[in-house]
Amino acid sequence: MTTRDDAVRLDSDDPLRSLRDNFQLPTNVIYLDGNSLGALPVATSARVEQAMVQEWGTGLISSWNTAGWMQMPRLVGDKIARLIGARDDEVAVADSTSVNLFKVLTAAARMNGAKNPERRVILSERDNFPTDLYIASSVAEAHGLRLELIDAADIKDRLADQSDPAGLLMLTHVNYRTGAMHDMQAVTDCAHAAGAIAIWDLAHSAGAVEVDLNAADADFAVGCGYKYLNGGPGAPAFAWVHRRHVDSVSQPLSGWMGHVAPFDFTTDYRPAAGVAKFLCGSPAILAMAALDAGVDTLLAAHDFGGMPAIRAKSIALTDLFISLVSPICEQHGMNVVTPLDSRVRGSQVSLAHPDHGYPIVQALIERGVVGDFRATDILRFGFTPLYTRFVDVYDASEHLAAVLASGEWHDERFAVRSDVT
Amino acid sequence: MTTRDDAVRLDSDDPLRSLRDNFQLPTNVIYLDGNSLGALPVATSARVEQAMVQEWGTGLISSWNTAGWMQMPRLVGDKIARLIGARDDEVAVADSTSVNLFKVLTAAARMNGAKNPERRVILSERDNFPTDLYIASSVAEAHGLRLELIDAADIKDRLADQSDPAGLLMLTHVNYRTGAMHDMQAVTDCAHAAGAIAIWDLAHSAGAVEVDLNAADADFAVGCGYKYLNGGPGAPAFAWVHRRHVDSVSQPLSGWMGHVAPFDFTTDYRPAAGVAKFLCGSPAILAMAALDAGVDTLLAAHDFGGMPAIRAKSIALTDLFISLVSPICEQHGMNVVTPLDSRVRGSQVSLAHPDHGYPIVQALIERGVVGDFRATDILRFGFTPLYTRFVDVYDASEHLAAVLASGEWHDERFAVRSDVT
Repeated sequence: MTTRDDAVRLDSDDPLRSLRDNFQLPTNVIYLDGNSLGALPVATSARVEQAMVQEWGTGLISSWNTAGWMQMPRLVGDKIARLIGARDDEVAVADSTSVNLFKVLTAAARMNGAKNPERRVILSERDNFPTDLYIASSVAEAHGLRLELIDAADIKDRLADQSDPAGLLMLTHVNYRTGAMHDMQAVTDCAHAAGAIAIWDLAHSAGAVEVDLNAADADFAVGCGYKYLNGGPGAPAFAWVHRRHVDSVSQPLSGWMGHVAPFDFTTDYRPAAGVAKFLCGSPAILAMAALDAGVDTLLAAHDFGGMPAIRAKSIALTDLFISLVSPICEQHGMNVVTPLDSRVRGSQVSLAHPDHGYPIVQALIERGVVGDFRATDILRFGFTPLYTRFVDVYDASEHLAAVLASGEWHDERFAVRSDVT
Repeated sequence: MTTRDDAVRLDSDDPLRSLRDNFQLPTNVIYLDGNSLGALPVATSARVEQAMVQEWGTGLISSWNTAGWMQMPRLVGDKIARLIGARDDEVAVADSTSVNLFKVLTAAARMNGAKNPERRVILSERDNFPTDLYIASSVAEAHGLRLELIDAADIKDRLADQSDPAGLLMLTHVNYRTGAMHDMQAVTDCAHAAGAIAIWDLAHSAGAVEVDLNAADADFAVGCGYKYLNGGPGAPAFAWVHRRHVDSVSQPLSGWMGHVAPFDFTTDYRPAAGVAKFLCGSPAILAMAALDAGVDTLLAAHDFGGMPAIRAKSIALTDLFISLVSPICEQHGMNVVTPLDSRVRGSQVSLAHPDHGYPIVQALIERGVVGDFRATDILRFGFTPLYTRFVDVYDASEHLAAVLASGEWHDERFAVRSDVT
């Protein structure tokens, strides 16, 4: 059995331990929800203040040139690229994840329509994040395709079934509910062998697990700026397109920032070279500055082993949490939903309680242990290796045991779901 | 002839003069580019800092509920509504102007396709802002329509021509180059009489001129947050839909924030009631906080006469500038492009120089008079009534006279266009 002293010792041996100092975390809170909203980096305030007061306030319109605002979608994209196995000039930062998914799915649907018009199916997972399904459904309808939702276990067989072949396979790399992670390379290989285009959503992967889009030979990807990238609430998202496609594909949100020469003010749209054609409107500079500072917190891990070290710590944290809460779960009719095999696990641990997940999560939050509830039965705990300590994991499991043993979650304040996130 | 003393007197008689104190303007700069990027309000830093440090840093994920983040697109929308003749719950704040235009144009194209499939034309103005034309072109292609570009003077005749009838009329209320303003009511009436749907871009109108979307009986509108609304570089934009359409229309960017119950995490998209269905991804909270503070600078004019007073001052400022620069223009082979009739003029004055617009603008910027150049021949000067003084107008005209008289714009530093905005 691991003791609290063991956890303290794991922290003092942790090569990434100093990186926690890069975050401004509230005291008396064990924050296990960085998979929903990453914590505030210490550097963000000054970075945003500079963009706001110096660049906007003093530089005014000239800052589009002199402060490099025009280049931010590309420069922040190049930073993110280093976390996901992409190259420079392959990642565009813009808009929201949903909007970027619309762009890449439409680009893929057009490519499919041109090359394989007989393929009428967009394949995805039944419990993929809903916004992905909503956007896919819209794209399917616009292109005369059908969105087919299946279980993760059936993906390979369904791809192999060529009687009604899939044209597009759209998956979220790490599942938002269960934390189960696909083998990106194997699934992409399988999609390609079956003639389908592979589109990956990295919302719960970028900055949390090792991703190598080019090694996996993926076709398109999108990702989120406000989870493990610590870019702040509603931070800009990103889009990636494999360089074998990027010159030939087109996307429908043909705004001026994706034009080859926006300030020529021509009436005809001519897309920029490369992934820049996936930009649309004017970049949100304050949000982009915050995202820039957020991504820097991950690049700061470079000298301590980078993404492999982050991934190793993530596995150690989630392994420890699973080992500590498993006996508690057993005692209280709960179970661990996240894969026990760390090779197919993201950086979260989800527990299921058949009836009372919501009030249990609220009772934990009352104690300062912040996870979240995902209907209908999931208690979700995210572990951000940059700022989560082993002692936090230990204490969180103790709080869970106490909440369940005391029955304090029965408190009527926790009975009615009053919040929205 | 108006003297500098006259201008000083106009400032001291200006009922809006105290509102300039709500902005943090650099000293020694006469900023005449608020039509491209509004100036930084004094209140913005504290508002953004609060969203960043207290709400995000301390409140973390709970702030989606406790700090009202979820409601911001609607609440800021209700504030903007008061500036454009819309009602509460009619304006959604989200994404960029280009993305919102894609949503409303697609909604309109679907409506047209269902009701008037024989109408194959999206009509717009040849020198509409390019991103509007690029987006319209994309929507036209997706719906088997044709984007037809004509001169403003020909709009009524073209609408009346029913041999190849227009289904959609998409116009920017105030032209970004010339500052010419359409009569929204008359043109909308004309569109409706001809069976077309009227879509207005308010990028250069919202916060600058009086707009009454409901009185004009417009169908759809979008607008920009970072010009006269002072929301900061790349601020969120907005979309408006007339209530007679809002329940029946659909838009393709069906992200989870436009779902009737985002946190039910259902697989099927069911749009929210009202304009909320025009939301898509997670709102960019830092940018939204800045926009909120920006819109407040306009609402602060309420006690001094509100939009009618802002409009009256805008006309007085632009009238004064035109009267002062007209003789200078005449002397130097330039002309005033903006309508002399203030009833059809936005809040800017554009001058044309056949050959040397760019270096003249650069020489003015060197003197601290910030306007901008719009290819191929436009020198553009925006007048934001909240912070532009009559004495600024006077001094700017003196600087223009001096730049032209001295020929200092011949300096080789100004010869090559090196910037992008």
